[in-house]
Amino acid sequence: MSANFPHSVQRLIEAFSRLPGVGEKSAQRLAFHLVRSPDAVSRELGTAAMALKTDLKYCPCCRNITDAELCRVCDDSARDAQQICVVEEPLDVLAFERAGMYRGVYHVLHGALNPLDGIGPEQLTIADLVERVREQPPTEIILAMNPSTEGEATAMYLTRQLAEFESLTISRIARGLPTGSELSYADEVTLGAALSGRNSVK
Amino acid sequence: MSANFPHSVQRLIEAFSRLPGVGEKSAQRLAFHLVRSPDAVSRELGTAAMALKTDLKYCPCCRNITDAELCRVCDDSARDAQQICVVEEPLDVLAFERAGMYRGVYHVLHGALNPLDGIGPEQLTIADLVERVREQPPTEIILAMNPSTEGEATAMYLTRQLAEFESLTISRIARGLPTGSELSYADEVTLGAALSGRNSVK
Repeated sequence: MSANFPHSVQRLIEAFSRLPGVGEKSAQRLAFHLVRSPDAVSRELGTAAMALKTDLKYCPCCRNITDAELCRVCDDSARDAQQICVVEEPLDVLAFERAGMYRGVYHVLHGALNPLDGIGPEQLTIADLVERVREQPPTEIILAMNPSTEGEATAMYLTRQLAEFESLTISRIARGLPTGSELSYADEVTLGAALSGRNSVK
Repeated sequence: MSANFPHSVQRLIEAFSRLPGVGEKSAQRLAFHLVRSPDAVSRELGTAAMALKTDLKYCPCCRNITDAELCRVCDDSARDAQQICVVEEPLDVLAFERAGMYRGVYHVLHGALNPLDGIGPEQLTIADLVERVREQPPTEIILAMNPSTEGEATAMYLTRQLAEFESLTISRIARGLPTGSELSYADEVTLGAALSGRNSVK
């Protein structure tokens, strides 16, 4: 029955339904919300989406997105450039910054290895990271990819790629039970990781 | 921490989070999905949102949105103009058309009475409906507003407004719909039962 929609509404519904987690019904709701809203609301969304990539650059140092020459973290001389935390996405940087306890810098891969989806090392910023380590050797690389199959594969690949830098410490963020969770609800893999990653307390 | 986002990303996040049901986290996910996607994806969403209202008109007969002179239903001579089904939103027309058992025409109010939100009779197409009934008297008006407080209030108000047309049958779709739900999400069987079980209120 979608042919019953005016063309401009149908076009917006299709654009919305291409977004992750937005089904056809939700896309209709969003589009009709804009139909009901003042013109300025849809125009602002339109302008914002059009302008998204115009001023968007990648930080030449860490590859995070930025609208300045260097991203805010790399531009901050108070940050410890000796410690590089490697993450999959810009949103992961935000998560660490929100936690507020990390004072080093980052490297953003923009994804994780996923051969089935055609994501190989060339699609990520892995070569940039290796070059960065070669030119300005840090003391530690923290691998903070997601605890998923793709994240683990990426961590293993990076560990091999960085093996040539002998004085470099490479670490992987701990896997275990999330704070505030209940042990009896944990899945087997998480519980296994928490057990094998146990730390001595005495 | 939002100040850490580039301006163009932050602007898009804000535009997304103004949409119904989209929280800050979802808005971030949507925006970063577009950051990762090819330029064409965000440009198409932008163009679609900008163009939304350009060709959008209101059917002079039923006030549904359309991109033609008359909407498809009013333009269809096979439809029974003697029966007018009054709904709140264009999506409600779609729901009835999907159910496929209604052969009359519609009238779209574009909302329901809601004094707290400043929605009075003047904000809806109620005067258009009364004029339409006066000029081309139908035999029946089916009140198909949502089974909500606002929908019921609107149905009562319309019943009073249309009381002057003595030969007119006014009916209300049956409350087969669960109170508090939304008409456009109803399944076809429920909607069909609600339509055929309508009760005369005058």
